[in-house]
Amino acid sequence: MLDRVVYPGSFDPVTKGHLNIIRRAANIFDEVIVSVFNNPNKDPIFSMEERVELLKETTGEIAEVRVDSFTGLTTNYVKSKNASAIIRGLRAVSDFEGEFQMASMNKELDPEIETIFLMTDSKYAFLSSSVVKEVAQFGGSMDNVVPKVVEKALLKKYNNK
Amino acid sequence: MLDRVVYPGSFDPVTKGHLNIIRRAANIFDEVIVSVFNNPNKDPIFSMEERVELLKETTGEIAEVRVDSFTGLTTNYVKSKNASAIIRGLRAVSDFEGEFQMASMNKELDPEIETIFLMTDSKYAFLSSSVVKEVAQFGGSMDNVVPKVVEKALLKKYNNK
Amino acid sequence: MLDRVVYPGSFDPVTKGHLNIIRRAANIFDEVIVSVFNNPNKDPIFSMEERVELLKETTGEIAEVRVDSFTGLTTNYVKSKNASAIIRGLRAVSDFEGEFQMASMNKELDPEIETIFLMTDSKYAFLSSSVVKEVAQFGGSMDNVVPKVVEKALLKKYNNK
Amino acid sequence: MLDRVVYPGSFDPVTKGHLNIIRRAANIFDEVIVSVFNNPNKDPIFSMEERVELLKETTGEIAEVRVDSFTGLTTNYVKSKNASAIIRGLRAVSDFEGEFQMASMNKELDPEIETIFLMTDSKYAFLSSSVVKEVAQFGGSMDNVVPKVVEKALLKKYNNK
Amino acid sequence: MLDRVVYPGSFDPVTKGHLNIIRRAANIFDEVIVSVFNNPNKDPIFSMEERVELLKETTGEIAEVRVDSFTGLTTNYVKSKNASAIIRGLRAVSDFEGEFQMASMNKELDPEIETIFLMTDSKYAFLSSSVVKEVAQFGGSMDNVVPKVVEKALLKKYNNK
Amino acid sequence: MLDRVVYPGSFDPVTKGHLNIIRRAANIFDEVIVSVFNNPNKDPIFSMEERVELLKETTGEIAEVRVDSFTGLTTNYVKSKNASAIIRGLRAVSDFEGEFQMASMNKELDPEIETIFLMTDSKYAFLSSSVVKEVAQFGGSMDNVVPKVVEKALLKKYNNK
Repeated sequence: MLDRVVYPGSFDPVTKGHLNIIRRAANIFDEVIVSVFNNPNKDPIFSMEERVELLKETTGEIAEVRVDSFTGLTTNYVKSKNASAIIRGLRAVSDFEGEFQMASMNKELDPEIETIFLMTDSKYAFLSSSVVKEVAQFGGSMDNVVPKVVEKALLKKYNNK
Repeated sequence: MLDRVVYPGSFDPVTKGHLNIIRRAANIFDEVIVSVFNNPNKDPIFSMEERVELLKETTGEIAEVRVDSFTGLTTNYVKSKNASAIIRGLRAVSDFEGEFQMASMNKELDPEIETIFLMTDSKYAFLSSSVVKEVAQFGGSMDNVVPKVVEKALLKKYNNK
Repeated sequence: MLDRVVYPGSFDPVTKGHLNIIRRAANIFDEVIVSVFNNPNKDPIFSMEERVELLKETTGEIAEVRVDSFTGLTTNYVKSKNASAIIRGLRAVSDFEGEFQMASMNKELDPEIETIFLMTDSKYAFLSSSVVKEVAQFGGSMDNVVPKVVEKALLKKYNNK
Repeated sequence: MLDRVVYPGSFDPVTKGHLNIIRRAANIFDEVIVSVFNNPNKDPIFSMEERVELLKETTGEIAEVRVDSFTGLTTNYVKSKNASAIIRGLRAVSDFEGEFQMASMNKELDPEIETIFLMTDSKYAFLSSSVVKEVAQFGGSMDNVVPKVVEKALLKKYNNK
Repeated sequence: MLDRVVYPGSFDPVTKGHLNIIRRAANIFDEVIVSVFNNPNKDPIFSMEERVELLKETTGEIAEVRVDSFTGLTTNYVKSKNASAIIRGLRAVSDFEGEFQMASMNKELDPEIETIFLMTDSKYAFLSSSVVKEVAQFGGSMDNVVPKVVEKALLKKYNNK
Repeated sequence: MLDRVVYPGSFDPVTKGHLNIIRRAANIFDEVIVSVFNNPNKDPIFSMEERVELLKETTGEIAEVRVDSFTGLTTNYVKSKNASAIIRGLRAVSDFEGEFQMASMNKELDPEIETIFLMTDSKYAFLSSSVVKEVAQFGGSMDNVVPKVVEKALLKKYNNK
């Protein structure tokens, strides 16, 4: 039986949409490893350590969640954790294509690892980390889209620049 | 821990795309109830009994699967079975919209029941029961898209008309 | 200056998604004529009179709104009301295609009449009258998706059948 | 070398969008058989004979075009005509899904027959036979979307009802 | 009553698709402020001053239009102009997603400001500033997609490089 | 009659999805020129020479195929080769938009050149060069998605970095 799943992502930064998926996954599975993917091709706003820290602060109260980070192939990471599935959130059509490309490739790389999609609550259906960053850059308030601690971190980050 | 899930559908008739989802679900969960939804607004080719029978014949070898049927609200049915999640397969964009409408409504009706999406193998990405029926009507061969027993049932059905 | 717009639709029945669009339109324009389209090709659950009545009961408190009904070409109706634009709500991708087909055709029929799209609040992004009817048929509760008076009318309608 | 292709469809009735595809195909291939599919599951406005006649009148001046009709599997028909490809027009996203389902199934039924997609001119990107029929029903003028002879036939059809 | 709207964008450079939206907006509203968004994260071909100048030259004859530029949050800018709505053009599905993300976020930031979508004429349905730039780079002629003055500016820009 | 077509692309690197389209095109047309587009705005992993070489090695056995490269406008290149059509593969919805933008622009630039779309086999429906590169970077095996020679070249490329 499946008891441990991995929710990989950039989480740059974690939004209320991500937290919505994390809570749903925690209701279904025994253990959810939320893991920051350290993508060498991307230039994130928050360092890997900061992203892990923000995830820990915002998921601390959920017993089933552990926060981690990784680089390399997601399928290798999932196997190394003895997990048997990848969790991904689906928001809207544009997600769908990229998610299917990645899930197909992962199936190719390791047919034993399944990808499980959960639907983001419709109130976060059009929320994305990039839009959040664009707004933060200009000092906009984001109470409803990111947790307080993330909002603070975002504003601090952009003031330092 | 989640051990029992429901995979509801019309299954008119079951295709290799459906079976692909059923096998994936059976790898993840302890028990998968594949349940034919008896929709009073639709006029299926196969009776509820026939659809149940075809599902039983084609899923017989999968230990985790039970076949059933229901009418009424899916969320009520899922609860009555002590299951805690609904399984749905996603093929392509058009699916996505209808699936999200239904999953949103089910969340509205019973927030405790989660919908879990699995991605149909890409070789079945463009397969649908309606296309299968259209082809069967004209006597086309369908080895790769439906199991043998379903092909026979389809051809018999259309010859009787 | 544009002061009067028409919001045409089937409204079979009016949902909270429709009301969300009506309120947005009322904030922008002087007068919003919400008009039930009597489509000879469709077989609605509620009669034209019932749909008009439900719209009146649920939009009564919005000063800018008038409820009406029509048959024939939307562009002819809009012109006969001395309105200069059609209001439509956009929910998700599937809407988009049909809405563009209709707006293109209306532009063809009367280039002076513009179609204005408003975005449905994301919490109603996946709500549709058909899903509502499917749920009502089985006695499901729909507090968050339709107004109380519509819920009552729906349940009554399906019990009478 | 490919010299003969089949463009199958309902053509109920032929629109300027269809004619746009027919002309493009005629520029590329030696012979284009435009063939009305007699679908036993649909209830068209125009009889098969009328649809063939309207196609003949509107494609008469294009030397490479022949008009025909068929029932049964498209792949069988294409083979019986010694053609080696099916032509289809793509307008917009919703088309794409259905077209891919049909093309996949046809590849399944006869791997030697290829489906070739041509892009409808963007001025017809949102034109559909169903919208045309809806407008005709209410007496709307349709100079830019259907040929004159089709407009006349449509208006006559709806007046007779 | 709404009398002033803002049409924000990159306009790098303005195309006939943008002008189509500007003219539609000018027919509906008393005043349309077309405003170049100075995005610190993007590296445009034309400077802010050049983009403003090209917009002025191409919209000069439309009485209701004023050209401006801004940086920071769109909602703050719209409020500072005493405007009450944002105008956006919709071309095709890919637009739709990004536009909904931005409109949702803007609703979050200032619930009093509405986003109004107008549909680009279908002959510009597949036109984008990036495709225009790609073509200009290789000296292609663009009579039908950008105004003469923009074509000249584009060719001059790429020859200088 | 059309006997020569051009299949332009980045091919960075060629995948089994591209080869699937090349084989389909070779079955239909007398001569297929597969041509690497040297895009000055992109920073490819493989040089133009390497991409041409990999295409030659993987299409060597197909008699109808010639490999070439070009820069500048695709329509100019197609004309210079006396070809009369561009071949493009369609995988899924996101492709569709970009492909239509480019095909519309090409029609604008040279109305005599047609774009012909072929549907990628559904088993490659979610395959993309970018996903392939992401996987190669981390040493993943890619037997089913790229030819052996491309896999080797990819692994060598990333080890050198």
